[in-house]
Amino acid sequence: MKKLFKPDLYVALVHYPVVNKSGNVIASAVTNLDLHDMARAAKTYGVKQLYVVTPLADQKELAQEIISHWTSGAGSTFNPKRRQALELITIKDSIEDVLQEIFSVEKSYPKTVVTSAKDSSGCTSFAEFHELLEEANPYLLIFGTGWGLAEEIIVQSDYLLEPIKGNTDYNHLSVRSACSIILDRLIRG
Amino acid sequence: MKKLFKPDLYVALVHYPVVNKSGNVIASAVTNLDLHDMARAAKTYGVKQLYVVTPLADQKELAQEIISHWTSGAGSTFNPKRRQALELITIKDSIEDVLQEIFSVEKSYPKTVVTSAKDSSGCTSFAEFHELLEEANPYLLIFGTGWGLAEEIIVQSDYLLEPIKGNTDYNHLSVRSACSIILDRLIRG
Repeated sequence: MKKLFKPDLYVALVHYPVVNKSGNVIASAVTNLDLHDMARAAKTYGVKQLYVVTPLADQKELAQEIISHWTSGAGSTFNPKRRQALELITIKDSIEDVLQEIFSVEKSYPKTVVTSAKDSSGCTSFAEFHELLEEANPYLLIFGTGWGLAEEIIVQSDYLLEPIKGNTDYNHLSVRSACSIILDRLIRG
Repeated sequence: MKKLFKPDLYVALVHYPVVNKSGNVIASAVTNLDLHDMARAAKTYGVKQLYVVTPLADQKELAQEIISHWTSGAGSTFNPKRRQALELITIKDSIEDVLQEIFSVEKSYPKTVVTSAKDSSGCTSFAEFHELLEEANPYLLIFGTGWGLAEEIIVQSDYLLEPIKGNTDYNHLSVRSACSIILDRLIRG
């Protein structure tokens, strides 16, 4: 493993716009363990920031309560390791707002890379994305909740990452598992 | 990727004996999303059976309710893919019972491989374990909940798998993330 491979990688977990089971565009609910698991994976693999994207006021409040409990509330002293992870999270209204914030830090807009469980033509492989990350430009890796990212987000992205495949034809991992595996593959190369 | 590499691999998620934050041996509570995420990862990577180990009657009942909702209840028709994953789960009182069941199927006892986030001497690397899996003997990969498996389980096991390392010194992944990454590394080789 290249221990010191620390690309300028950002991750976004998107709750809007995503699709539901019927393919309709919805805003999904924030899930407590998505935040914990993805923050811990992000911290393990040197991700610079984990953005939780939702425009819904009550969902932003819920996400903030979860984060605050572990970063400044009772959880922060009970489990400081959890604090370190959850401190990586910033809540944003939209992917556009995420791009603006990364621009303000990096002085350039990140390339966007969307993830999907579906096979598509023109996907970028894990090996290709690993090579891109070596070029020292910022990248934003985008995960959808619900039944996946809305088509409008996929078509606007710079890259579509190939789906994770195991040794079966079953490809229904949770977003928590998918994020963990993808970060491991990308950083290990 | 070796697409047809399908070893005789079993996974156990252990709720007793595990340790709590203070290092005391406890029985931990069953967590809904552990079952979902680990079953979906197990199904993706061709694991033959996922054992949920707890001796507590109420926790066995809770686990069975979660499984039944998705395998024969309302969830089974709402989301058949979830059914396929959760059908992999069998609830057992103890690791000993798991070993007996695997023996009854495989006609030999599996080698046991415990996982830990801690560095230890004499660990088996992912590459070494992948090679062992190619030898067509059954293996049982054991994950602990809480703050990890009790020492008595670790010392009795045949192998101790090396901990997952990212590109940082942070190593506090959830058991759901760890299981997903470990299966991906083992099956891909």
